[in-house]
Amino acid sequence: CNAMKQSNVDLLVVDIMSSDVTTIHEDAGFHDAAKIIMEKQFNHLPVVDSGNHLVGIVTAWDISKAVAKDEHDLVKDIMTRKVVTTCPDEAVDISAFKLDSNNVSALPVIDSNKHVVGIVTSDDISKLLARRH
Amino acid sequence: CNAMKQSNVDLLVVDIMSSDVTTIHEDAGFHDAAKIIMEKQFNHLPVVDSGNHLVGIVTAWDISKAVAKDEHDLVKDIMTRKVVTTCPDEAVDISAFKLDSNNVSALPVIDSNKHVVGIVTSDDISKLLARRH
Ligand SMILES: C[S@@+](CC[C@H](N)C(=O)[O-])C[C@H]1O[C@@H](n2cnc3c(N)ncnc32)[C@H](O)[C@@H]1O
Repeated sequence: CNAMKQSNVDLLVVDIMSSDVTTIHEDAGFHDAAKIIMEKQFNHLPVVDSGNHLVGIVTAWDISKAVAKDEHDLVKDIMTRKVVTTCPDEAVDISAFKLDSNNVSALPVIDSNKHVVGIVTSDDISKLLARRH
Repeated sequence: CNAMKQSNVDLLVVDIMSSDVTTIHEDAGFHDAAKIIMEKQFNHLPVVDSGNHLVGIVTAWDISKAVAKDEHDLVKDIMTRKVVTTCPDEAVDISAFKLDSNNVSALPVIDSNKHVVGIVTSDDISKLLARRH
C-alpha cells in the first residue's frame, strides 16, 4: 500500500471503511453465503482460509450467477480468487480509482498479514458526495 | 424532481447515468432475472408492467435472498415495490443523498411517464472521485 499514498484528498480508507465485516470460510456452502448476505444486508463477503487469510470474495452477484447456471456449489467454487484489496492507510481517491478501473463495487481492507480488517464500498465513497451537500 | 434542483454541484444525473438499461417484466421468473443479471454484468434490474411503467426493482441481492429462503418465485414476488427513483435533470449530489439515506446502490432514472430511461449507481458516483484524481 505504501507506494501509493500521495494524494490531494485527505481522507484515508480507515476513515470511511466498515470495520464490522463478516467473512466466510472457503469450504462453506453457497447457501450459507446467501444466508449471511441476506442477514447482514450487504453484497460482498470476503472469503478466508483456515488461517483467516483472505483468499477470495463472494458477492450476491456470484450467487445470482450460480442460480442462472444451475450450479449450487461451495463458496470456493463460485468466489473470485484474484481480489483487489486496499489497506487502512490508503487514500480514499486511490480506492475510488481501484474500484473504477477494476469494475468492482467493494474492496476488502487487509492488514500486513492478509487478515481482513474492514471493507470499503462505492456506497461509502458515494456518501462522501451526499454529505458534502 | 423539480423541487430538489438547487445544488452546488453542476453535474446532473443525465451526465453520468447509463442509458442502455435492461428491464424485466414483473411476470418473468426468478431464473430469468438471474440470467439477465449474469449476462449484462450488473446488479440492478428495473421491473416493468405491460405498459412499460416502472413497478419495482430486482437485484442480485434479492436473488441471493430468495436462495437463502429457498423460495424460487416470480420476479413480482421477490422484487422491491417501493422504488426510490431519480430523473435526468436531478443534481448528482441529490442522487447521492437518496442512495445514502435509503441504503441502496442504484436509482432507476424515469421520465414523466414512469418509463425507465437510465440507471445511476453508487459506482457511477464513486467514479467522479476517482476521475478527479
Ligand atoms: C437493502 S439493499 C442492501 C444491499 C445493497 N446495499 C444494495 O443496494 O443492493 C438491498 C435491497 O434494496 C432494494 N433496492 C435496490 N435499489 C433500490 C431502489 N432504488 N429503490 C428501492 N429499493 C431498492 C433491492 O431490491 C434489495 O431488496
